[in-house]
Amino acid sequence: MSDWHGPAPERVYLHDVPLVLAWERFRVALASVGLWQALEAEEVPLDRALGRVTAEPVWARVSSPHYHAAAMDGYALKSQTSEGASDRSPVSLRIDSQAQYVDTGDPLPDWADAVVPIEVVEPVGATDRGRATETVLLRAAVTPWSHVRALGEDMVVTELVLPAGHTLRPVDLGAVAGCGHDRLRVRRRPSVGIIPTGSELVPIGRTPASGEILEYNSLVLAAQVESWGGQARRYPIVADDLDRIRETVMQAAASHDLLLVNAGSSAGLEDFTARVIEQVGEVLAHGVAVRPGHPVILGLIKPVAGDRAGKSTATPVIGVPGFPVSAALTGEIFVEPLLAHWLGRPGREPERLQAALTRKVHSSHGDDEFLRVTVGRVGDRWVAAPLPRGAGVITSLVRADGLVLIPAGIQGVEAGETVEVRLYRSTSELERTIVALGSHDLSLDLLAQELAQRGARLTSANLGSQGGLIALSRGEAHLAGSHLLDPESGEFNLAYIRKYLAGMPIVVLGLVLRQQGLMVAAGNPKSIRSLADLVRPEVSFINRQRGSGTRLLLDYQLDQLGVDRSQVQGYRREEFTHMMIAAAVASGRADCGLGIQAAAEALGLGFIPLMQERYDLVVPRQHFESPLLSPLLDLLQDDGFRQMIGGLKGYDPAPMGQIIAELGA
Amino acid sequence: MSDWHGPAPERVYLHDVPLVLAWERFRVALASVGLWQALEAEEVPLDRALGRVTAEPVWARVSSPHYHAAAMDGYALKSQTSEGASDRSPVSLRIDSQAQYVDTGDPLPDWADAVVPIEVVEPVGATDRGRATETVLLRAAVTPWSHVRALGEDMVVTELVLPAGHTLRPVDLGAVAGCGHDRLRVRRRPSVGIIPTGSELVPIGRTPASGEILEYNSLVLAAQVESWGGQARRYPIVADDLDRIRETVMQAAASHDLLLVNAGSSAGLEDFTARVIEQVGEVLAHGVAVRPGHPVILGLIKPVAGDRAGKSTATPVIGVPGFPVSAALTGEIFVEPLLAHWLGRPGREPERLQAALTRKVHSSHGDDEFLRVTVGRVGDRWVAAPLPRGAGVITSLVRADGLVLIPAGIQGVEAGETVEVRLYRSTSELERTIVALGSHDLSLDLLAQELAQRGARLTSANLGSQGGLIALSRGEAHLAGSHLLDPESGEFNLAYIRKYLAGMPIVVLGLVLRQQGLMVAAGNPKSIRSLADLVRPEVSFINRQRGSGTRLLLDYQLDQLGVDRSQVQGYRREEFTHMMIAAAVASGRADCGLGIQAAAEALGLGFIPLMQERYDLVVPRQHFESPLLSPLLDLLQDDGFRQMIGGLKGYDPAPMGQIIAELGA
Repeated sequence: MSDWHGPAPERVYLHDVPLVLAWERFRVALASVGLWQALEAEEVPLDRALGRVTAEPVWARVSSPHYHAAAMDGYALKSQTSEGASDRSPVSLRIDSQAQYVDTGDPLPDWADAVVPIEVVEPVGATDRGRATETVLLRAAVTPWSHVRALGEDMVVTELVLPAGHTLRPVDLGAVAGCGHDRLRVRRRPSVGIIPTGSELVPIGRTPASGEILEYNSLVLAAQVESWGGQARRYPIVADDLDRIRETVMQAAASHDLLLVNAGSSAGLEDFTARVIEQVGEVLAHGVAVRPGHPVILGLIKPVAGDRAGKSTATPVIGVPGFPVSAALTGEIFVEPLLAHWLGRPGREPERLQAALTRKVHSSHGDDEFLRVTVGRVGDRWVAAPLPRGAGVITSLVRADGLVLIPAGIQGVEAGETVEVRLYRSTSELERTIVALGSHDLSLDLLAQELAQRGARLTSANLGSQGGLIALSRGEAHLAGSHLLDPESGEFNLAYIRKYLAGMPIVVLGLVLRQQGLMVAAGNPKSIRSLADLVRPEVSFINRQRGSGTRLLLDYQLDQLGVDRSQVQGYRREEFTHMMIAAAVASGRADCGLGIQAAAEALGLGFIPLMQERYDLVVPRQHFESPLLSPLLDLLQDDGFRQMIGGLKGYDPAPMGQIIAELGA
Repeated sequence: MSDWHGPAPERVYLHDVPLVLAWERFRVALASVGLWQALEAEEVPLDRALGRVTAEPVWARVSSPHYHAAAMDGYALKSQTSEGASDRSPVSLRIDSQAQYVDTGDPLPDWADAVVPIEVVEPVGATDRGRATETVLLRAAVTPWSHVRALGEDMVVTELVLPAGHTLRPVDLGAVAGCGHDRLRVRRRPSVGIIPTGSELVPIGRTPASGEILEYNSLVLAAQVESWGGQARRYPIVADDLDRIRETVMQAAASHDLLLVNAGSSAGLEDFTARVIEQVGEVLAHGVAVRPGHPVILGLIKPVAGDRAGKSTATPVIGVPGFPVSAALTGEIFVEPLLAHWLGRPGREPERLQAALTRKVHSSHGDDEFLRVTVGRVGDRWVAAPLPRGAGVITSLVRADGLVLIPAGIQGVEAGETVEVRLYRSTSELERTIVALGSHDLSLDLLAQELAQRGARLTSANLGSQGGLIALSRGEAHLAGSHLLDPESGEFNLAYIRKYLAGMPIVVLGLVLRQQGLMVAAGNPKSIRSLADLVRPEVSFINRQRGSGTRLLLDYQLDQLGVDRSQVQGYRREEFTHMMIAAAVASGRADCGLGIQAAAEALGLGFIPLMQERYDLVVPRQHFESPLLSPLLDLLQDDGFRQMIGGLKGYDPAPMGQIIAELGA
C-alpha cells in the first residue's frame, strides 16, 4: 500500500499473516469459547457406523469365541486318550464316551480338550452319512488344544478392541460386533453451512452470460466436507448486499458448527465478508500468506442472545477466496484439520515422495506456495512437473498428482532440485503412469482415455515439441509428442532428435498425419486465403509459442513465401495450445491463427488448409522396451483405435504404430 | 482323502484350484452370459456424484472462463497505451475511454487487452470509494494480457476434462460444473445381496449361548461392498435347511447383480451352499488354494424363466467361507475386483513396501497364504511382524498394517528375509508408529489409546519379555516391555538386558509396579492359598509360555518354596497373555493360573496376591532420543496418565517415567 493512496474506508488491504500464526489465532479463539475440542458423541447402530469415528475406546463385552469351539469338522476327544497312538498301534476310541462328532464351530464337550479332523481318523463299524457311530481309530497322538479355538482366542472380555478417535473400517465393525456390541458411540458429524455470495454468480447448469460465473465452489466445498466426515448444507447464492449477507450468515450460524462464506473475502469494493463478520462477531485474520488462497478470512460469530435455535455458542466462520483453486486449498488447509479435531481423529496426512522438479519455479512472494505437479517414475527416479499456477485453473487440481510446498522465504526452486510432493494418488498408481511431455495433440487425450480403460495411465503436459525433446534428454518423461519440421530436409523430427538427444538410443513411432492450416472466424469475414494475407493491415494474427512445431511450420512457410514476420500483426502474441488459438479466434481476439483442423472444427471456425504434418512419438529405447509402455504400443496396433483417430477431422492414422526410425547407439 | 474311507455321497471334499485359475473360470463364465462388462450408465446430479465412476468421457460444454476476465481488481486498458511509462515519465490514462475500473471476474471491455491492479496506479483528481473518476497515472508499461484470465484459460469447449472410468473427487465435480454440466452419466452401483446361513448364527447384540455364533460377517461384507462403490442388502439369517436356503437364494438372485452366501461353503454335513448352487445353476469352483479362505465357492445362478422381477440374466454367486478373516479376504480377493470391473474403474491397488519379516513363518500348504502383519520403521529399515494366523481372529485384520502374500509352492519365509507388504495404512502413518514388542501389559493399551489422541501411534505385539529383548537386539522394535526377575540378584530386567543386549546403549524406563498372584474361580471353591497348593492332586494349573516374565516369576517362587514343577498339573499347558490365563480359569479349563490382578478383576475372578513386580520399558538409546518417541516420553510425565494407571487394580505408577538405568556404551 503506497503512501500516496488516499484513505478509503471501504477498501482495506489485506495484511497477510503466516499460515502457522493464522492457525494459532484461530485455535486460541476457538479454545476461548470452548470450541477447540471434540464434538459430543452419539450412538449409532453398527450397520450405519462405517467411516464414523469412535468417541471412546471400545472394550470387549463378550469373549470371542465365548466358548471352546471346534476349529474343524471332526471328533472331540481328551488328548490323553490318544497317547502312544501310531501307525503300528492305533488307538481305538468309542463314539460318545471317548470321541464325539463335532462340526466346525460346535462347542467342545466339557470332558474334551482337542479335536481331531475327520480326514485323519478311521471309522470302524457302522457309519451314518460319513460319521462313525461306533468307534474311530487314531494313528497318531493328538496334542492338547489342537484344532480348538479356545475361549477368548480372538478377544477376551474387557480387552481394548479399538481406541477412541478411530475411523471405522469394515473389519472394525466385525470385531466390534464380535465382542458383543450392536451400537457404538461415535462423534457427531460436524455440520457445515456453505454460503456462496456474489452478484456475478449463477447456478451450475445455466449457460452463463459474459460477466456471469458458474457457482461451483460450494459444490466442491460440500463434497470435501462430506468426504472428511462432516455434513454440508449449501445455501442459495446471495447477491453482493451487506444486509442480505449478514442476515443469511446470522441465520445459518444458528444451525451449523462452521460456516464457509465463499468469496467476498478479498478487499474489493464488493467484498463484504469481512465487514459482515466484524458486525456480528470478530475477524481473527484477514489474509494468510499462502498461494493460492491468500485472501482467507478467519472469524468467530457471536452467539445471538435468545436465539430461537437455542445455540448458545459462537460459530467459527471461514471466508473462503473465490478462485476455485484457492477455495479447494482453503478447504484442505483450514477445514479438514478443524473437522478432524472436532471428530477427534488425526488430520489427514498425505503420502510423501521425493521427486526432481522438471523446471525452475520462481516463488516471488513471501508466501507459502502450494505448487500443483504431475508425478511420474522415469527410469530410476521420480520426477515432478509443475502444472499451471493460476488460482482460477481448477483443472490444475484435477490433473495434479500432488502438491509441492514452496515455503515462504524461498525465492524458488531450480530445475532438477529435489522437492517433497504431498501425493493425491498412490505411488502404485503413479508407478503405472506413462509420462508424456512435449507437443500436445488430441490423440494423446484419446490414448489416455483408452489406456485408462485398460488399467494403464498416461499423463501429458504441453511443453511444445522442442520442450519435449529437452525433457527426454533430462530423463523427465517416457515419451514426447513431436512435429518439428526441419527447414533444410523438409523431414519431420529426425534432425531435432539428432541435435537434442545425440547418442541416446531412440525409437521414433509414427502416430498421425495432421492437417495444419489457418483458423478464421466462421464465414471467414476477412476473406483470408493464405499466409500472405497475414501482412494485410486489417488482419490480426495470434501465434504459438517459440519451440512449438506449429511455430516452426509457420516460420518455414513465411520464409518460403518471403513474408516479413515483423509485418504480421500479433506475431509476438503467443498461446500454448491449438485450442487456445482457436478460442482466441472464436472470441475475436485475433482474426486468425495457425493450428490443426480438429481445433477449428471443435469451435465451429473456418479453416484454410495449408499442409499435412507428421506427429510422432519419440521414445527412448529404454522405455520403449519397458513393460510400462506395452499397453500403449498394443493400442497403436488396435484397429478400433485407428478408426477412432481416423474419424477426427483433419487426421490420418496412416503412420500409427510404424517405426519411423531408430536412432542412437 | 484316504483309500479306506468309504464313499459318503453327502460329504464332498474340496478340490482347491489355484486362485488365478479360479478367477479365470469365473471370468469366462461371466463373459459367456454377457456379465463380464461394465454396468449400464445412469444420470445423477453433480451434488450426488461424489465417489461415483464416470461412464463416459466428460467434454467441456463451455469454456472456462467463457470470456476474458479481469484477474485482479484494477483498471482495464489497452497495453499499447502504456508504452514507455516509467517512474520519470508516467503515462496518464482517461477513465472510461482509456482505462475502465474492473473488479476481479469482470469481463474485459472489447477494446482492452490487459488489467493493471489498483494498487499500482495513481488516481489523479476525484475518487469515488477508492476508484479514480477522472484519470490514473501509470509508472510502468503493461504487457499484453497481464492480469487477464483469457477465455479458455482453464478449459476450452470440446476439450476432454475427465476420462471414463474415473472415480469422482471433490475437485472433479468443480471442473465438470465449471465446463457447463450439472448432471453426469455414471455407472450404476452394483447391487449385492448378502445371505447369512447357519443354524448356529444369532444376530449381533444378542448375548450368545454356548454353540451360538454372532453373525457379523454380513455386516463386514456389506460395509466392504459400500466402500467399494456397490449397494449392499443384508438378508435375515437362514437356518441350515437346503430348501429354505435355495428359496432365499433364488428370490434374491432376481433382484441383485451378485449374491454372497455366507458360510455353508465348506464340505461339512450341513454345508448346503454348493448343493444349492448346483440345483439352481452351476458351481464353477469349490475350493480355492488361498489361506485363509480356501473353502470359497464360485457359481452362476440360472435366470428363472418368466421371472416376475423381469431379470433375464444369470446371477453370479460367491459362497463365502464362515471364518471372519476368510470372509473379509474373500471380499478383497473376489468381490472388489468384480465390482471394480462392473464400475469400469481400475481395481484397488494397495501401496506396497519392502520390509524384513521379524520371524520365521512356515507355510506348509500348497496355497497362496495371506499373512497379516504389523509394520514399523525401526532405525533405517521397515520391519513386518506376523500377527496370529487363525482364520477366526478378526482382530488380526483390525490390527494389521498390511498383508504379505506367501505364494503357493514356497515352504515359508525365514526371519529377516525381505517381503513385500500390501499396506492397509499409509506409509506416513506407519512412519509415526512406535513399535513395542515384548511382554504385554494393559498400560501399553492405555498408552496407545492416549497417544492416538495426540496424533501418535503405538502398536504392540506380545512376544513375552525375553522375546522383546531379542527383538530389540535384532532391531525389530523401538522398545520392549519387560518384567524379568533375575533369581540371583532379585532385581528386574537389568541382568537380562546385559545378556541379550550386550554393548547396545539402552535406557531402562520405569512404567509400573504390578501385583502378581494366583487367579482362581470366584469364591475360590478349591481354597487355594499359595503356590504350595499347586501340587494338590485336585488342583489344575495353566501356565504362561516360556520366556515370559510371569513364567520366570513362577519358577523362581516354586524353587524358593521347594515345589517340584513336575508335580504341578498343567505346568506344561501354556497361554500367551494374562487375559488368556484369566479366561482359562473363568471357563473352568484350569483351577488357577499366575497373572496380574487387573486381569482377574476384569473377569470377576478371585485373586491371591503373591508379589509386586516392576514392569519396565527397555528402550535403545537411539530410539529414546528420536523425535518419534517424544510424545510417549511426555505422556509418562503426565499427571493425568499417572492417575489413570494408578486407578487400575493392582497397579502402582510410582516408577513411571523414571530412568531406572542406562546401560551399554
